[in-house]
Parts: sequence; structure tokens; C-alpha cells
Amino acid sequence: MKIQQIAQMVGGQIVGDEALDITGLGMLDNAKTGDIIFLDKNKYEDAAKKSSASAILTIQKIETEKTQIITTNPKLAFAKILAAFCPEPNLASGISPQASIGKNVQIDESVSIGPFAAIGDGTKIGKNTVIHSGVAIGIDCKIGSSCIVFPNVTLYRKTELRNEVIIHAGAVIGADGFGYILDEQGKHFKINQVGNVIIEDRVEIGANACIDRAGMGSTLIKEGTKIDNLVQIAHNCTVGEHSIIVSQAGIAGSSTLGKYNVLAGQSGVADHVTLGDKVTLAAQSGAFRNIESGEVYAGIPAVPASKWRRYVTHLSKLTDYIHKIKKIEKRLTDIENKNNQG
Amino acid sequence: MKIQQIAQMVGGQIVGDEALDITGLGMLDNAKTGDIIFLDKNKYEDAAKKSSASAILTIQKIETEKTQIITTNPKLAFAKILAAFCPEPNLASGISPQASIGKNVQIDESVSIGPFAAIGDGTKIGKNTVIHSGVAIGIDCKIGSSCIVFPNVTLYRKTELRNEVIIHAGAVIGADGFGYILDEQGKHFKINQVGNVIIEDRVEIGANACIDRAGMGSTLIKEGTKIDNLVQIAHNCTVGEHSIIVSQAGIAGSSTLGKYNVLAGQSGVADHVTLGDKVTLAAQSGAFRNIESGEVYAGIPAVPASKWRRYVTHLSKLTDYIHKIKKIEKRLTDIENKNNQG
Amino acid sequence: MKIQQIAQMVGGQIVGDEALDITGLGMLDNAKTGDIIFLDKNKYEDAAKKSSASAILTIQKIETEKTQIITTNPKLAFAKILAAFCPEPNLASGISPQASIGKNVQIDESVSIGPFAAIGDGTKIGKNTVIHSGVAIGIDCKIGSSCIVFPNVTLYRKTELRNEVIIHAGAVIGADGFGYILDEQGKHFKINQVGNVIIEDRVEIGANACIDRAGMGSTLIKEGTKIDNLVQIAHNCTVGEHSIIVSQAGIAGSSTLGKYNVLAGQSGVADHVTLGDKVTLAAQSGAFRNIESGEVYAGIPAVPASKWRRYVTHLSKLTDYIHKIKKIEKRLTDIENKNNQG
Repeated sequence: MKIQQIAQMVGGQIVGDEALDITGLGMLDNAKTGDIIFLDKNKYEDAAKKSSASAILTIQKIETEKTQIITTNPKLAFAKILAAFCPEPNLASGISPQASIGKNVQIDESVSIGPFAAIGDGTKIGKNTVIHSGVAIGIDCKIGSSCIVFPNVTLYRKTELRNEVIIHAGAVIGADGFGYILDEQGKHFKINQVGNVIIEDRVEIGANACIDRAGMGSTLIKEGTKIDNLVQIAHNCTVGEHSIIVSQAGIAGSSTLGKYNVLAGQSGVADHVTLGDKVTLAAQSGAFRNIESGEVYAGIPAVPASKWRRYVTHLSKLTDYIHKIKKIEKRLTDIENKNNQG
Repeated sequence: MKIQQIAQMVGGQIVGDEALDITGLGMLDNAKTGDIIFLDKNKYEDAAKKSSASAILTIQKIETEKTQIITTNPKLAFAKILAAFCPEPNLASGISPQASIGKNVQIDESVSIGPFAAIGDGTKIGKNTVIHSGVAIGIDCKIGSSCIVFPNVTLYRKTELRNEVIIHAGAVIGADGFGYILDEQGKHFKINQVGNVIIEDRVEIGANACIDRAGMGSTLIKEGTKIDNLVQIAHNCTVGEHSIIVSQAGIAGSSTLGKYNVLAGQSGVADHVTLGDKVTLAAQSGAFRNIESGEVYAGIPAVPASKWRRYVTHLSKLTDYIHKIKKIEKRLTDIENKNNQG
Repeated sequence: MKIQQIAQMVGGQIVGDEALDITGLGMLDNAKTGDIIFLDKNKYEDAAKKSSASAILTIQKIETEKTQIITTNPKLAFAKILAAFCPEPNLASGISPQASIGKNVQIDESVSIGPFAAIGDGTKIGKNTVIHSGVAIGIDCKIGSSCIVFPNVTLYRKTELRNEVIIHAGAVIGADGFGYILDEQGKHFKINQVGNVIIEDRVEIGANACIDRAGMGSTLIKEGTKIDNLVQIAHNCTVGEHSIIVSQAGIAGSSTLGKYNVLAGQSGVADHVTLGDKVTLAAQSGAFRNIESGEVYAGIPAVPASKWRRYVTHLSKLTDYIHKIKKIEKRLTDIENKNNQG
């Protein structure tokens, strides 16, 4: 691809050879001649110059003979070029004769359905959506357009996926929420879960993640949120727009998260908790109470991250302080003894 | 449904309009005319009165013009009414011609098997059990009556499900326990896992949960226990009756839990540990040692919850105590200096 | 099996009845006449003697009338005998007519493929490999010989399994790495993940585990490593040879682990972290920084385990120290008062 085309694509300005032909993308440590790389941190400037790459995406002009594209966000520009060079393979293949299609379905003719996928009665699937092999879709689901549902995913009844939703292999959307109440005989009586799950536009859900359907109403994942592998989201939760839920994090029932939250890996949110917007929860920490917008929390139970860092420092010095206390006691006894003698 | 019918079903007593027609169920914040709601906490009494619901399940008579059903456990009553109003859809559909059935199986004629389910040789399935699409059942499994196995579940060979067991989508029951021993060449030699998994009556297992089969003997989940999504139970564990294992909790090999345990979300139990009856383990905590019946434990490693709460308080005040120590040292030095001058 | 055959198999020496017939294997608490058991800890010597077993694998001769096999590693010997007595069932069954096989595949004639497995275009599968029912294999995968892929596993495009690899049910190998960058509109722009996953010889991967494919290059699991259920390994990680990753552990993106690492259950490794060889990370702990070879770490954030144990002890005594501080303050005040009066 001509570098001019690339510069135009990313809204950047060329410094150097405007006729350059870009043949690939590389990273600092493996770029080849013909590759374009990106530089987003000053400390890598030397590495960028020394690499074999032919062109550099950079936020400001650097001293080099390589051709540069000056752009406000080199990494974003790189991601866009990558999407152009290495588009996702087109997996459209029509509806397999080995799929099982229920009654009263509405499936656009542009939809692809892989072998051994089972589509429940009354389900609707919008145009250009791709359902891979082994997917099980329950009755009365609504799936929008341009969604991709990878192999062996299960959608329980009445699940709604809006548009451009991606669900990775093995994920389970809409399983029964975990709701029981002890009955007169001391047995757990199952509370029927009669709600559903709604996944809004451009949400992506990782492999083997689980999102349970609501007891009543809907469990809701809002637009643009990205959920990683093996995440658990319990019944009746709402996760706000453009949030990031990293692998193995879990959100217990009826919790509500605002926009642009980041839950790092293996973190947890207790039930009936509210997190504001732009809340960050550190890896392996646990939010047992509400957190205001903009806060960064860490620890179990989670506290402001600055406080948590102080705890960690204190813990590392406890031995010292315990020695100090022992020394103090000795000095005190010395004084008291002297005083008594005096 | 007539309120008299409902009162009879839940064993309650009507106060108000005995001819009332109940058309649905609602929650405090969304009930409509014709709905019945439940009130189980005094603090919600006003909300209940102000809601649009036509009837209230309550433990004692309240001041309102709405019709009431007085019942000892309003929430349990509500769950029972919900089950009557919104029964789980009947998914019985016979045996799909697109299923794969092994040799020498014994499958009751009332069983349903979805498309693309594969049933191994020698497996038995009892009456009214429903096996959904994409389920893989290994050889020589025994499945009782009235079980539901949701899509894409895998049961390895010799797995036993008793009666009324529910297994949610993607769960894997009976995979090889994680057992190896270093051999002479420093490689991990696999210890064949020749046992199985037994799941007793009315156990429910969440989506993508894993229960490994025993090295020898059986991994055992006893009657009425409920296991949430993404839980791991390792080989040779026994989980006692009527326990609750919340999402993402894990139990390592050969541990034994009593009855009515509650393991909260993301908690862990180490290997070869014994928990008594009615043990509660808080979210994100880790039981590395045995715990007696009736105890509530928290923290990593888990300690009695009251102790753990004290730790948390102490941690939050460490800065203060460190300041105190510094002040004390200063005061001591002052005294010592004076004494020496004296 | 004759005990002489067994002794030969495990390289041991018989003490006692050389003509003994061994009919099974047992554990200390359930062995029957005819069984062989192993004894690897002195404290179990009495139990071994009292058991009904007919023979004992032991590291040194003990006083008993039972027949013994003296061998350097009784537990390893036991595992080898177990493999001889209870071999894994041979699941080879040819290629099911109910499987879906893509174009341009190269599948050895000795391969077994279960019903409802879908093999993508261009995929190669080596001899004696067994693909179970419901497995989805993407395009251009390379699978070596003697692998076992259990039901409902998904391999995304270009995944490579070398030889004798075992993948348990529901695992997902090669799903998109979790990579996004905020665009100009504040939306998460997906960074296409154009790499793959390579799984080397004799790796075993647990049920519902997830290993994401690299952004560029390969996520690499090296020879002989064993990965338990529900483990997450993010894009661009390298896990060294003969490591053990226990259930529910997670490794974030671009981290590199050496050989013979042990990550205990529910532990985590942050992104871009390097662990040396023979590193042990305790259960539920989190490695946020590099760790040198041979170290044992524990806690969140992880510190050397000896340090962590000290923290835990300190925490348990904080109440005492806080009392001490209060007492000290009182004694100081007393002295100061006296001094002032004086």
C-alpha cells in the first residue's frame, strides 16, 4: 500500500518519501524493510530509528532518514492500518444444510449459519450476521445485523444481541441467574429466572464468559463495552457503555456500573453495588461498596488505590515498627527504673 | 389467577378482597395494577404501599387498602407463585434425528435429545430427562429422571447424574483430575484418573463450571447443592448437601465440605481441607486449613470473619499508629535528654 | 498381572512372594486383597501394614509379611502400574459421517473425528489424533499426531498443536486477544489480532481453559506444560516447559514464564511480567513484577513467601501491638507528669 494512502487513512502528514510502498506492519523488535511501525513513547525513539522498518508513525517529527507519518495517536493509526492490511477473514458461507433451524424464525438471506448450529423457534437474525458451528440459540432470541457468534456459544431463550456484537467461543449468555430461597424443609427452592439478557451495539464478549439472565427484567450490557474471557456477570446487572472488564473478573447480582469503567483481571464487584463512571478497579481487588465516578480503587475490600499502596508499604515495614515498639519499651523501663532508684 | 388459589398455594391468609384477580408479579419499583408483590423488610413498607401492585405478600398485616396475603415467608411464597405464573418452558421434543446415539444405550421413551447431541455407548437416561443440542455424553454414563442438560455440556465417561439435576450450558463434568508426578526425566507423568463424578438429586450446576472426576473413587456433589457459573471443583472432592458455591469459587483436590456450606464468589478452598457443616467463606477469601461447623471465615488465609474485620480496621489506621510511634520516640528522647542533663 | 512383571515395569526389587498375582490397585484406606498400594511417607507405614493390600511399593524395606517392591519413587511406580491396569479407553472410531470436513484438509487415515465436529478449510491433522464430538477447528490449523481433543473444544484459525497434546472439553484456543485502543470518539477500536497460538508436545490443557492468540506472532505454550481447568492465558504470553498452571489462575498479556513454574490456584500474573525458571506463585497471589528463578512468592502484590508469612503473623498480632502502644503512651505520660511535678 502506498504511504500516501496510509497517511490519508489515518489523517497524518508524511515527512520523507511520499512514494514509499509499505508492505507490512512490524513491532520495534521484529520489523522488516517495507514495514511501518509506531512510536508512542520517547524512550523507544532510538529503537525505532535502529529498526529495519521503512516508516514510522509518530506524534512528532524525529531525527531519522526513515519516512515518517506525523499523527496525533500513532498506536490508533497503527491499529487502523493493521485492520486494512490484515482484515478479519470473511467467514460468510450461507446457511449450512447441517444446521438445525427452528420454526417461525426470521433469518435474513445474507446470514451465515455453520454446521451443527441449532436455532430455536421464533428467533430473528439480522443481515450479515455469522453464526459459527455448534452454536445453540434458544427460542425467541433477537440477533441484530453484522454480529459474529463463534463456535459452541450458547444463547438461552429471549437473549437479545443488537448490532455488530461479537461473542467468542464457549460463552454462555442468558443462563439462569443464581437465585434460590430456603424452603420449609431447608431445601433451596429455585426462583425462576424469567428475565433476559440484552447486549447492545458493538459489545464484544470473551471466550467462556458467562452473563446470566435477569430474575425479572433484563441484565444489560451497554454499547461498546468489551468483556474478556471467563468473566462472570450475574443476573440483573447493568454494565455501562464503553467499559472494559478484564479476564476472570466477576460482578455479583444486581450491581450497576457506569460508563468507561475498567475492572482489571480477577477483580470482583459484590452484589447490589453501584460504581459511577470511569471507575477503575485494580486486579484481584474487590468492591464491596459503592464507588464514586473517577475513582481508582484497589485491595480487598477495595479502598482508594493511594491508600492501598500505603497499606502495602506499611505492611512491608511492620517488622521495623514492631522492633521500634520493643526498643521503646526497653527505653521506658530504663527511665522508670532510674526514676524509681532516684 | 384468583388470589384465593394463590393463598392456598402458599399457605397464606387473605386480608382484603378475596375475589381479587392477580394477573402478574412485580417488584417494588415496577409493579403494575393486577400484580402481586412481596414485602420482607419493614423498611420497604412505604414503598410497597405506594406501588401500583394490587396485592402484597407480607409476614404481618400492614395498614393499606391493598389486599394482603399473610404468610410466614413472603419471598418464598413469591417464588412459588412465580413458578406457577412463569413455569420453565417445556422443552421436551423427542429424540432428534440429528442426534448421535451410541450402542447399547438405555434411553427412556419420554427422553428428549436435541440435535447434534452425542450419546456414548452404554449410557442410560431416565424418564423425562431433556438433553439439549450439542451436548456430549461419554460412554457408560448414568443419567436419572427429570434432569435437564443444557447445550454444549460435556459429561465424560461414567458420570452419574441422579434425578432432577440441572446442568447449565458449557459445563464440563468428569474431565480428568489434574494429577501428575515428575518422572526420572523431569517430565510430568500423567496419573490416570480412573474414578468418576456423582451428582446427586436436585443439584444444579452453572454455566461453564468444571467438576473433575476422581483419581480413584468418586468426586461427589450431594443432594440439593447449587453451584454457580465458572466454579471449579477438583478431583476427589466431596461437597455436602444443600450447599451454595458462588461463581468463580474453586475447591482444590480431595477436600471435603459438609452440609449447608456457603462459598461466596471467587473464594477458594485448598486441597485436603475439611470444612464442617454450615461454614461460610466470604468472597475472595481462601481456606487453607480445616474450618469447624458454623464458622464464618474471611481473608487470605481465611480467619474468623470478626478477626478479619479487625485486621481491616487496623490496616486502615496503621498510618495513625506509625505517627504515634514517631511521637512516642520523640517524647522519650526529650525525657532521656532532660534526665541526662539533670 | 504377576508381581514380577510389575517389578520389571517400574524397575523395582521384590521382597517376598515372587509369584504373587496382583489384581488391582488400592489406596491406604480402601485396598483389597490382591491390590498393590504405595507408601511414600513414613507416617503411613502402620496404615500400609494394616491395610488389606497384598503388596506395597516402598522406597525401603519395611517389617511386614506383605510382599514389597523396593523402588526409588513409589508414587511414580504406582502411576505407571495404574496406566498399565487402567489404560485410557481407546476412542478411535474413524471419521464420523456426521462430521463436517472443510476443503483442502490433510487428515491422516488413522485419525478419528467424532460426530458434529467441524474441521476448517486447509487444516492438517496428524496420525492417530482423536477429535471428539462437537469440536470446532478453524481454518489453517495444524494438529500433530496422537493428540486428543475432547468434546466442544474450539480452536480458532491457524492454531498449532504439536504432538500428544490433550485439550479438555470446552477449552478455547486462539480466540482474539483482548486488545483495544480508544479512538477519537472515545470508543474502543479493536486491534486486530493477527497472530496465533502454538501448543508444543505433551502439553495438556484443562476444561474450559482459554488461551488467546497473539496480536502479532504467537502465544506459546512450551513442551510438557500442564494447564488446569478455567485458566486464562492472554495474548502474546510464553509459558516455559514443564510448568504447572493450576485451576483459575490467569496470566495477562505479553508475560513470559520460564521452565518448571508452578502457578497455584486462582493466582495471577500481570501483563509484561517475566518469571524465571522454577518460580512458585502461591494460591490467590498476584505477581505484578518480575520474579527471579527459584523464588517462591505469595500475597497480593506477591512478595517472597517467607516475608508474606511474616506479614500474616504480624497482622494476627496487630491488636496486641496497638494495646502496647496505648500502654506505652500511658507510661510516658506518667513519667512526664512526674518529671513536671518534680
